[in-house]
Amino acid sequence: MDLIITNANILTLDNEDRILFGSVLVEDGIIKEIGRVRTDNKKKVYRVLDAEGAFLLPGFVQTHVHTGQTLFRGMADDVELLDWLNKYIWPLEAAHNERSVYESARLSILEMIASGTTTFLDIGLVHNTESILRALSESGARGVICKMLMDGDGIPKGLAQDNSESLSEIRFLKEKYHRGCNGRIMIGVGPRFALSSRERSLVEAAEFARGEGLIITTHSSENIKEVLSIRDRFGLSNIAFLNKCGVLGENSVIAHCIWLEPSDLEILKDSGTSVAHCPSANLKLASGFARVPEMLKYGIEVTLGADGAPCNNNLNMFNELRLAALIHKPRTGPVNMNAKTVLRMATIGGARALGLDSEIGSIEIGKRADLIVVNNRGIHTNPVDNIYSTIVYSSMGSDVSCVVVDGNIIYQNGTHYLWDLDEIVRKSNEEKGRLLKRL
Amino acid sequence: MDLIITNANILTLDNEDRILFGSVLVEDGIIKEIGRVRTDNKKKVYRVLDAEGAFLLPGFVQTHVHTGQTLFRGMADDVELLDWLNKYIWPLEAAHNERSVYESARLSILEMIASGTTTFLDIGLVHNTESILRALSESGARGVICKMLMDGDGIPKGLAQDNSESLSEIRFLKEKYHRGCNGRIMIGVGPRFALSSRERSLVEAAEFARGEGLIITTHSSENIKEVLSIRDRFGLSNIAFLNKCGVLGENSVIAHCIWLEPSDLEILKDSGTSVAHCPSANLKLASGFARVPEMLKYGIEVTLGADGAPCNNNLNMFNELRLAALIHKPRTGPVNMNAKTVLRMATIGGARALGLDSEIGSIEIGKRADLIVVNNRGIHTNPVDNIYSTIVYSSMGSDVSCVVVDGNIIYQNGTHYLWDLDEIVRKSNEEKGRLLKRL
Repeated sequence: MDLIITNANILTLDNEDRILFGSVLVEDGIIKEIGRVRTDNKKKVYRVLDAEGAFLLPGFVQTHVHTGQTLFRGMADDVELLDWLNKYIWPLEAAHNERSVYESARLSILEMIASGTTTFLDIGLVHNTESILRALSESGARGVICKMLMDGDGIPKGLAQDNSESLSEIRFLKEKYHRGCNGRIMIGVGPRFALSSRERSLVEAAEFARGEGLIITTHSSENIKEVLSIRDRFGLSNIAFLNKCGVLGENSVIAHCIWLEPSDLEILKDSGTSVAHCPSANLKLASGFARVPEMLKYGIEVTLGADGAPCNNNLNMFNELRLAALIHKPRTGPVNMNAKTVLRMATIGGARALGLDSEIGSIEIGKRADLIVVNNRGIHTNPVDNIYSTIVYSSMGSDVSCVVVDGNIIYQNGTHYLWDLDEIVRKSNEEKGRLLKRL
Repeated sequence: MDLIITNANILTLDNEDRILFGSVLVEDGIIKEIGRVRTDNKKKVYRVLDAEGAFLLPGFVQTHVHTGQTLFRGMADDVELLDWLNKYIWPLEAAHNERSVYESARLSILEMIASGTTTFLDIGLVHNTESILRALSESGARGVICKMLMDGDGIPKGLAQDNSESLSEIRFLKEKYHRGCNGRIMIGVGPRFALSSRERSLVEAAEFARGEGLIITTHSSENIKEVLSIRDRFGLSNIAFLNKCGVLGENSVIAHCIWLEPSDLEILKDSGTSVAHCPSANLKLASGFARVPEMLKYGIEVTLGADGAPCNNNLNMFNELRLAALIHKPRTGPVNMNAKTVLRMATIGGARALGLDSEIGSIEIGKRADLIVVNNRGIHTNPVDNIYSTIVYSSMGSDVSCVVVDGNIIYQNGTHYLWDLDEIVRKSNEEKGRLLKRL
């Protein structure tokens, strides 16, 4: 059924950053009117959602998450990145099966929806990608699900896969799922990071992604040891090495980019590559502070992601908004990373990074209706002075009262349209228990 | 009526950091039994609260807040500290009246309670302290309310007050309110910071506080310009200057302590002074990173506070817990500031700073029952691996389902026992409007 959301404080996040009071009319999943909406001469029946003065925003777009890791929440606190990977995350990922991945993905996607994320880029897992796709399909959310590639030396047996096999599996997934569910589902290519793929595999993966018109994503320059190891092995910065392999480009999203060399900024900018900034994870793993204000000034598209539950430990975009606004101020001054800048990174910026900005990322006529209603009557958000400030500095995930994707209400007042929250919590605990036994 | 909380995962935060499953029995506001509770041979009637497996913690203790500033939430984003004070906060504070302070305090205290804070140290305002005390008394929470002292040069007319007048007002407040409401209410002395009081006034205030057995609190070493200005004027570090004035000591809580000189650590330690670390505010005002891990290693009592709504922009301890755990890791490594350390700062550490650790700060037999129930069934907190990690890294303010102070349930499932949330939001907006007209 078509939808009218009335009495909303609408943050459009369009090019003029217009804020309007009024309604949004949605037909066939597309935004048809904004502001003053006249339905009196129309014959159709609409579902009416009274926002009662709440904020209406475009849904958040996260450009870097690991839905396969959410069962491992809180299991690897207070360790260094490379230990975190080798001793905890890789063995845990290798112990996954079809069911545990499905429950991990359901839990992840539901946490994201409940805190306002409507689109995400998942760097995925080596195996059981179809479990994630099944969860995404049921969830009603929008996502780019990458199959992860790992074929370098020293990869645990359960995670290593021959590159040609990986790419042919992605081809299969693309044919079966890409732009399915009315376009909500997309397939991508996710080499884990430079040290976990052979150089030739990176070249092949990049060529493949470009040829098929798919997003490619990877981690880079997250940790000083990682960067030094790549320079040692290839004589290049991590970013320059990825560029040499063809991984950078307009279809490319690179997570972290903390330990950049000065020339890396130019490479990122010239190649049209987007960056996924993950402040919680960068702090928790003691990786460092990405030079986000400098990247933005340079014209690089910097977007936001929560990364994984074992290094965050949430998938809640409000945490990342607040941190992205706060943590760069001591170094660059209090005026940098203001609330509006950060909110644009989390919406239209993310949509641009995924090549979806003609479809989502702002509230504009002709775009798909991916919308969130954020309650503004909270004790913790009042008085409201500036709406951007309220969203970024004062609101929390639980203020999201309604989530619309493609014109469909998929979450409202704590209830998902299809999934039972308590059942998902219970099943995720059960599957975690079984996974630990397999380990 | 006396209270039994059953089926709780009890984080005692006692000296052994015991975690128990079971019940807590409260009589006359005092914790009488923990764990296995036998009521069969007792004749009394108890109120039973079934925690249904949720976490039961001591309520959080915030050691630095400004309840008088909450009406100004979001009104002074993205400016430097000294501008923030002179151009925004001081003129706004000077425009307060009795009613606006009361509404500001109600909003503040309710936000704190709803997110699990049961005790706070408020540095207060120069005028209308009784409005804050009225709000605290009604709220059911516990607090040390300081009257703020400002009598230096360049203080706006509406804020400056002769020091002897200030101290005699504190004496009056002490006699009327101190340890009233069954001990919940305490009075303190709050010179704003070294630059806004005459040196002699600081000496007098410190002597007064020590003589009367009251907490004294001030801001120090928050901003590089502030520190340089004090060194310029007095030839001492900010901390050494406060020490010279007698302000430091076991009854003293100093907020921020970012720009410390090496010898300041020794002064803080030797004097038994506690530090209130305010991570959100320090980031937002670009003040810098306090050397918290170093202070803790040195044996200094470092505690947590949200500071004020215009520099945070919340009064939610969960934000400060998460930030305190995260922001020091890039500099000092991922093992520092682990979840348990931070949670102890937020509970028993805060209680020690306020001289209340024999009464509150942990769940132990004989202590007063200041307790919070934190829901652990959330999509965003599951699976739970380590309870400290869940509280610090994954939980949010809205997970607090019940708040008990002095054995009384003062907040449960979004409802305060006395105050109407919607009315407080409405009135705070009205009073903010009137205040802006007066400005």
